[in-house]
Amino acid sequence: MKLGRVIGSVVATRKDPSLESLTLLIVENVTSALEREGGYVVAVDSVGAGVGEVVLYATGSSARLTAVTKDRPVDAVIMAIVDSFDIDGRVTRLA
Amino acid sequence: MKLGRVIGSVVATRKDPSLESLTLLIVENVTSALEREGGYVVAVDSVGAGVGEVVLYATGSSARLTAVTKDRPVDAVIMAIVDSFDIDGRVTRLA
Amino acid sequence: MKLGRVIGSVVATRKDPSLESLTLLIVENVTSALEREGGYVVAVDSVGAGVGEVVLYATGSSARLTAVTKDRPVDAVIMAIVDSFDIDGRVTRLA
Amino acid sequence: MKLGRVIGSVVATRKDPSLESLTLLIVENVTSALEREGGYVVAVDSVGAGVGEVVLYATGSSARLTAVTKDRPVDAVIMAIVDSFDIDGRVTRLA
Amino acid sequence: MKLGRVIGSVVATRKDPSLESLTLLIVENVTSALEREGGYVVAVDSVGAGVGEVVLYATGSSARLTAVTKDRPVDAVIMAIVDSFDIDGRVTRLA
Repeated sequence: MKLGRVIGSVVATRKDPSLESLTLLIVENVTSALEREGGYVVAVDSVGAGVGEVVLYATGSSARLTAVTKDRPVDAVIMAIVDSFDIDGRVTRLA
Repeated sequence: MKLGRVIGSVVATRKDPSLESLTLLIVENVTSALEREGGYVVAVDSVGAGVGEVVLYATGSSARLTAVTKDRPVDAVIMAIVDSFDIDGRVTRLA
Repeated sequence: MKLGRVIGSVVATRKDPSLESLTLLIVENVTSALEREGGYVVAVDSVGAGVGEVVLYATGSSARLTAVTKDRPVDAVIMAIVDSFDIDGRVTRLA
Repeated sequence: MKLGRVIGSVVATRKDPSLESLTLLIVENVTSALEREGGYVVAVDSVGAGVGEVVLYATGSSARLTAVTKDRPVDAVIMAIVDSFDIDGRVTRLA
Repeated sequence: MKLGRVIGSVVATRKDPSLESLTLLIVENVTSALEREGGYVVAVDSVGAGVGEVVLYATGSSARLTAVTKDRPVDAVIMAIVDSFDIDGRVTRLA
């Protein structure tokens, strides 16, 4: 998984029927210091994440292992919202 | 998924039989500001996308989860045409 | 999928038994302008491609979805030989 | 697999229910000389790894092949703690 | 697949039980001219490769398609030892 920050969302009405009702969020990659790393991914939200939140996303076939993404043609899913993380003993709280 | 812009198409008559009748589009990667990011992918079209349109494409095994790509040896599929997206509250309309 | 140009082949006699009789081709990545992009892949040939030809190759689990690669430990397959492609209305014929 | 060094952990209370009780560790990539390579991954711990330890992690669908990650939406798992490694006959002991 | 050169091995006693008895080799990436390309992978050996040999390795789910890696949490496998390869008609013999 990677850490990312939700920066926006995508609206698409012409799409594969199985994508109906999924929320597509734009997530920019961040380093473990929460700095922009370059690059982004459009991921399905499975946890109710909002703009500005730091999340964990999974890619590949694993992105289809949540209840909302099962059997759908999606390759990235937000599966957790980060409350805090700890690097070498220094804790960063986000929530 | 990634955002991309359709820039062209590929014709191939000598190919795996299961690819018969699939449309192969060339999609260049774009940033969330719709600038060229470098790089491209050739993706199967599952939604009737045209040249110039901004689309979402999925890669890997997830690319085989649409009706047209099921069980075929393809690793990228356009599964949505983007109508608009929203970055930090600023909306960009495309359709 | 990506566009590539076949530049050579690999011979390996000590290998997983399931690879017996597969043709392993060296494919260099090319841009949509057919310039070298850097990087290469060794892909199984499923369509009778020859040195110099521009091909489409698929990677990952999708590479096992042709008749010759089914259930084999290979992660890249040439699944089409490109006849022509069209970028923004400009056609390039290869065959 | 890649070699990485565990540098921290992530706490997330809002997450896919199947992630309950999994330990999420931040692993920075290292070269085969144990120098920082740039980049990191958040991986599920399946072997009791601690901060500072050098580990092996697997990504993609293979990350779901341990007992703790089976059927979960995770794309990276620590599946071994490195005791030593040998490069061109020179042994580096870590444990 | 990619070409790589075996440069060493990894010893890990604390690991997922299914990894018992697998040989973990460090493989550095090489170009099709056998120059170091940068980067490496730790791959399971399925063919008896030794240090210094040029090999082909496969990654992702395909790495689990050999007899020794089936159902194991590994994402890279050496599935062939290269005897020779041919680039634009110039043959390089390795064995």
